[in-house]
Amino acid sequence: MPETSTQPRTTQSAAYTPTDRTVPTRSKERAAYDHEMVHAILDEGYVCHLGFVRDGAPVVLPTLYARAGERLYVHGSTGSRPLRMTGQADPGLAVCLTVTHVDGLVLARSAFHHSINYRSVVVHGIAHQVTDPEEKRLALDALVDHVVAGRSADSRPANTKELAATAVISLDLNEVSAKLRTGGPNDDEEDLGLPYWTGVVPVTRGHGTPVPADDLAPGIELPDYLAG
Amino acid sequence: MPETSTQPRTTQSAAYTPTDRTVPTRSKERAAYDHEMVHAILDEGYVCHLGFVRDGAPVVLPTLYARAGERLYVHGSTGSRPLRMTGQADPGLAVCLTVTHVDGLVLARSAFHHSINYRSVVVHGIAHQVTDPEEKRLALDALVDHVVAGRSADSRPANTKELAATAVISLDLNEVSAKLRTGGPNDDEEDLGLPYWTGVVPVTRGHGTPVPADDLAPGIELPDYLAG
Repeated sequence: MPETSTQPRTTQSAAYTPTDRTVPTRSKERAAYDHEMVHAILDEGYVCHLGFVRDGAPVVLPTLYARAGERLYVHGSTGSRPLRMTGQADPGLAVCLTVTHVDGLVLARSAFHHSINYRSVVVHGIAHQVTDPEEKRLALDALVDHVVAGRSADSRPANTKELAATAVISLDLNEVSAKLRTGGPNDDEEDLGLPYWTGVVPVTRGHGTPVPADDLAPGIELPDYLAG
Repeated sequence: MPETSTQPRTTQSAAYTPTDRTVPTRSKERAAYDHEMVHAILDEGYVCHLGFVRDGAPVVLPTLYARAGERLYVHGSTGSRPLRMTGQADPGLAVCLTVTHVDGLVLARSAFHHSINYRSVVVHGIAHQVTDPEEKRLALDALVDHVVAGRSADSRPANTKELAATAVISLDLNEVSAKLRTGGPNDDEEDLGLPYWTGVVPVTRGHGTPVPADDLAPGIELPDYLAG
């Protein structure tokens, strides 16, 4: 484990242009803007936290999302608040969409330097309703495949009634940043001799054995994309 | 696994009063307001998503938090945006603080009924700077103990300089709701015969073996509160 908590990121991929909103006021060295890093963090999450403003106050709701290239999709009932608000807002709804992974608990010798190893992506922008039927259908496939890759081809596609009941909003990846903390604790020099255990407790995410529905018909085997 | 996705919650504990902002427009049966449920969800999380409004636009940032009774604390550098904004705002900063756990991937026979099992808490309110030195000290202990229970007593407490560099904001648990989805898929009657595997893939969170810092002094054993 490296002693420093941050490492320069020198990938060669395309990068998002930093803006006033995507340059952190603190720990600037933890920020990253390359597409590859941002995509990887987004693709690993199940749920994003979608922020919007309602009656002047912030609202943050957890919701499913999916990425297709440089565009994110969020879906929900046509009756749900942010989706309804997006449909009513012209030119769209100002949102902030954030995805975070917790990777470790950083235990320093000093209370002050306790921290969390994490990877997050914050996207600022204007969300728009997806009205094109073909894009909507592709977005819904992407949302199912984001939960389990390959699943949209192995389930019944949405019918006309379901498509009408579902709203999809899109958010382009333009104003985007990743932020990461990795590595061990950063205790001050004068604390190195203190008699406290120090290090990192990894936080892991895994999947349990799939639990079939009670009414699963006999003879239907677990699909390959769920095995292991 | 029950076939229905929601169960009535009938605990006897105190409950938060629902408001316009904490009654969902959809899936009302998934909402819960009892203290016990809300506390349990909050106490299990490491990172919350803190939403606030800056220049009219929403901002959602991941951050550490802790609960002490009916009050939440968030801390950060005195230079960080939401903490600075809270100090400048009178009577405080309107925030929405959300904590979410993903428990399972719900694979229905129809794409439409795919879902996630989750537990979330959404807190609306006004965040205030903690200025009382004693409350600030207790809040910082709570933040360290939220990461690892018992750790604040086994690390060097913040000194005067560190206390001055750290801002703590508080948010009372008044306007609060939990939202949960549990159980298996909810396919429509006419889809029950479709030849697709259906069920839930559990999503688990765990901890890896603690990794000592490179400069951990020899002879310092892993503390009991980290063993297992």
